Amino acid sequence: MSSTMMDVPLTLDWIADRAERWFPDVEIVSRRPDKSLTRTTYARVIARAKRLARALGAAGIKRGDRVATLMWNHAEHLEAYFGIPLAGAVIHTLNLRLHPDEIAYIAMDAGDRILIVDDVLLPLYDKVVASGAKFERVLVVGSHGEHESYEAFLEAAPATRALPRLAETDELGTCYTSGTTGRPKGVVYSHRSTLLHTLVAAMPDSLSLSHADSLLPVVPMFHVNAWGLPYIAAMVGAKVVFPGCHLDPPSLLELMATERVTIAAGVPTIWIGIRDVLDAKPGHYKLVPNVRMIVGGSAAPEQLIRDFDRHGLTLIHAWGMTETSPIGTVSRLPAALEGADDATKYALRARQGRPVPFVELRVRNENGDVPADDTTSGEVHIRGPWISASYVGGHTPERWTDDGFFRTGDVARIDKHGFIKLTDRIADLIKSGGEWIASQELENALMGHPAVREAAVIGVPHPKWSERPLAAVVLKDGQLCVADELRTFLASRFPKFWVPDAFVFVETIPRTSAGKFKKTELRDTYRDWKW
Amino acid sequence: MSSTMMDVPLTLDWIADRAERWFPDVEIVSRRPDKSLTRTTYARVIARAKRLARALGAAGIKRGDRVATLMWNHAEHLEAYFGIPLAGAVIHTLNLRLHPDEIAYIAMDAGDRILIVDDVLLPLYDKVVASGAKFERVLVVGSHGEHESYEAFLEAAPATRALPRLAETDELGTCYTSGTTGRPKGVVYSHRSTLLHTLVAAMPDSLSLSHADSLLPVVPMFHVNAWGLPYIAAMVGAKVVFPGCHLDPPSLLELMATERVTIAAGVPTIWIGIRDVLDAKPGHYKLVPNVRMIVGGSAAPEQLIRDFDRHGLTLIHAWGMTETSPIGTVSRLPAALEGADDATKYALRARQGRPVPFVELRVRNENGDVPADDTTSGEVHIRGPWISASYVGGHTPERWTDDGFFRTGDVARIDKHGFIKLTDRIADLIKSGGEWIASQELENALMGHPAVREAAVIGVPHPKWSERPLAAVVLKDGQLCVADELRTFLASRFPKFWVPDAFVFVETIPRTSAGKFKKTELRDTYRDWKW
Repeated sequence: MSSTMMDVPLTLDWIADRAERWFPDVEIVSRRPDKSLTRTTYARVIARAKRLARALGAAGIKRGDRVATLMWNHAEHLEAYFGIPLAGAVIHTLNLRLHPDEIAYIAMDAGDRILIVDDVLLPLYDKVVASGAKFERVLVVGSHGEHESYEAFLEAAPATRALPRLAETDELGTCYTSGTTGRPKGVVYSHRSTLLHTLVAAMPDSLSLSHADSLLPVVPMFHVNAWGLPYIAAMVGAKVVFPGCHLDPPSLLELMATERVTIAAGVPTIWIGIRDVLDAKPGHYKLVPNVRMIVGGSAAPEQLIRDFDRHGLTLIHAWGMTETSPIGTVSRLPAALEGADDATKYALRARQGRPVPFVELRVRNENGDVPADDTTSGEVHIRGPWISASYVGGHTPERWTDDGFFRTGDVARIDKHGFIKLTDRIADLIKSGGEWIASQELENALMGHPAVREAAVIGVPHPKWSERPLAAVVLKDGQLCVADELRTFLASRFPKFWVPDAFVFVETIPRTSAGKFKKTELRDTYRDWKW
Repeated sequence: MSSTMMDVPLTLDWIADRAERWFPDVEIVSRRPDKSLTRTTYARVIARAKRLARALGAAGIKRGDRVATLMWNHAEHLEAYFGIPLAGAVIHTLNLRLHPDEIAYIAMDAGDRILIVDDVLLPLYDKVVASGAKFERVLVVGSHGEHESYEAFLEAAPATRALPRLAETDELGTCYTSGTTGRPKGVVYSHRSTLLHTLVAAMPDSLSLSHADSLLPVVPMFHVNAWGLPYIAAMVGAKVVFPGCHLDPPSLLELMATERVTIAAGVPTIWIGIRDVLDAKPGHYKLVPNVRMIVGGSAAPEQLIRDFDRHGLTLIHAWGMTETSPIGTVSRLPAALEGADDATKYALRARQGRPVPFVELRVRNENGDVPADDTTSGEVHIRGPWISASYVGGHTPERWTDDGFFRTGDVARIDKHGFIKLTDRIADLIKSGGEWIASQELENALMGHPAVREAAVIGVPHPKWSERPLAAVVLKDGQLCVADELRTFLASRFPKFWVPDAFVFVETIPRTSAGKFKKTELRDTYRDWKW
């Protein structure tokens, strides 16, 4: 026998219709390239998204076709987030921080038929085309020049064309991993996976998004769908403040103050820059009390959490990746530990936390699941309804276990509270004299030193130990620090053999398009280090 | 093409495994019939639930079989909530407040094979059996006498029997409507509907349940699964405080104080009793600040919300019914109205609010969807993944529209914020001289008068007007009030023809098993009223 419940698919039109019907007047604010702000509403964004969907259908876009975006975070990108899937098509958010060759490869691999591009990104678009990408049509938001206008495309949409009836297993969007090795690999999200991710991400112990929030997604909409935030915001009816292309700390802080932002989301680099400005100009920006700052993408140093607490801002640690939609874990202090001492609480908040509902997570090494002893390390395996089961084209099937878990490539320990702590990427572990050293742990400790702004630790070939750690350190403005001081600082926290043998002081550390340290480049630079 | 996402069903084992793995030490507190408290944990409850599932399997219970409970709210009932569905069976929570004949009818209609019953309810069980109910086995929690012991049944469970692999469309539980007319009708929830309901109910703008909460479900576990709270609590890892059979206000208030309850849920009658005790002994109970009190089941008078604010407790209005799993709407003040005056805010909080995600709601009359003018009334229609599409056996198919909405039988208006306000049940509307009068609106206004504890308004046959309203009023202790005063009180708020022609002052108002006014009985009592 079967239940008496209605058979209703989990499809994006539920969120679109909800925002349009119940939150019509909630504001969507966008920062434009000239730094001006424009304001629209959910009613208008969704009406335009539906218009886009009809226009795409009229243009011959069929179920499963790929439509790409090359855009910053703003209202038109939100229209594409809804309009493309409502047409039955698949939104492919191209990462504008990648090399044009790589963007071209990804667009061709996905088979993108139409591209929607910001006028300010046309120079990049030209390079992508020069690198071999071909699109049937290119729609330009803003000054379109000799190209086709996005606005004209919308205006020409038929007024009455029916949108396709969606199934929950239909494809909704596709993203490519910006891996540091090998070609980028694609995953494809379904309507079902996206909607379940949206529900779980909004929960109080996840990101806790409500209709009363004003959300600033600093994380780009071309990075794993801005962590799902555009869909979460529309579902709960939160105001959204899009920063456009202006991601410098003063521009962001100004937006946070004037638009009464209550929650923001971005990678550690962004927050380090914001912290530095707040330190330099305490009290200058009148922010809402207790703004929550979601940090993900890479591990946030504990010191950063402490620093923001001083400024009345709360950093909340989350973890995930392209293959996980992305939210896998969120760090929320267990209720039982609210009375614990600061050291315990900060240490827990700097961990990546516990899995959200419907995510099964285990940390495994060659002996099986690691004990919750906070000592034994293993690789994080993960399973759930918004975790990818493969890459497009079936590349590297060895990333999945026989029992259906995704091998994340992240190394972690787990403590008695069930909190995971990422210590490294498997590829970044340093093997010294037969023992493993976790580079990220050293980095986050170094970033707790008052003179250090950023630090990256890599393994460099060594004649005797196979590899030894080398630390590349960026000091804060006006700070002086010698290697011996950092060596002593680390020696009190780690086994002696973990302490880097070499410290180099540099201006900047190379980063990937996702804001992570580009360790391949660092390793190339220092490969011939003379020990 | 299909997405690359994992194909993972939404089944209850996800919640069970999550509570066991990530919240093992969180407390489950139960008040026993002798008023003592017992304490257990999620780890133990889920381990015992799995044992129950294995024991049921070994006892021949197969997928889709019905296993009934006749129990108060306590840890063993929570075990049944998980253990029965994990066995692939369907939990049928019998409503102990119904007449034994009705319980017997419902148990036989559902085909319940096994019954789990509290020892203190054995006298009721005997009556149910005398009324014709038959069960293959009866398991008694507590002093089992000549019956079979629930504990012994659990102990005899095989240690290793595999539990069935669940599909998300599998049946999970069944409930019967306690309608005031006709035979009770059953609906059957699926694993999918229950899990989606659980996710949405936990969200910040719904009930907002987190791991940091201590939850007191006063609403019985035999009423629409205690509004889904047991599953929500286990998913987020909240502490649960079960009141057992002691539902008098002092017992509840004592539990709220000693167990640091942060959120409670129940029908208006419960909160009216609690309000009266708080009014009589202000400051006596040391409650956590800002306890959230979820109220549902019937409309809460605005005055009650004001009264609780005075005591530092926040009443939150939700709406739903057996056929809707139950959560359909929740009343959360729109962010834009936080600066509004008290009158506006209280009026909005006393409405039933806006639909939660994935619930499509419309208010319809003979002219179609009503405008958002807060004047035009219609029936609430509702659709969504946890709304029933039929009754078991296909009874009264006219309750569903051709386009797949459930006709709730509730009459409502809708305002410019999209907030619905229930004004009556269709069956309770009073037709006077060709015009409709909404009885619940009159009742809630009367309950705003300082002398009135409770009020029910019914239509009584009238020779000239067809029907005229009569108000049955329970005064607060020590209060004196004459009909004329109430007449004047209402005349300032409603059209003149709405004001009841008769006021009768009574000791109590008869109630249904769900705590709602039993208007059929009132109408019988006053049917021959001499106008």
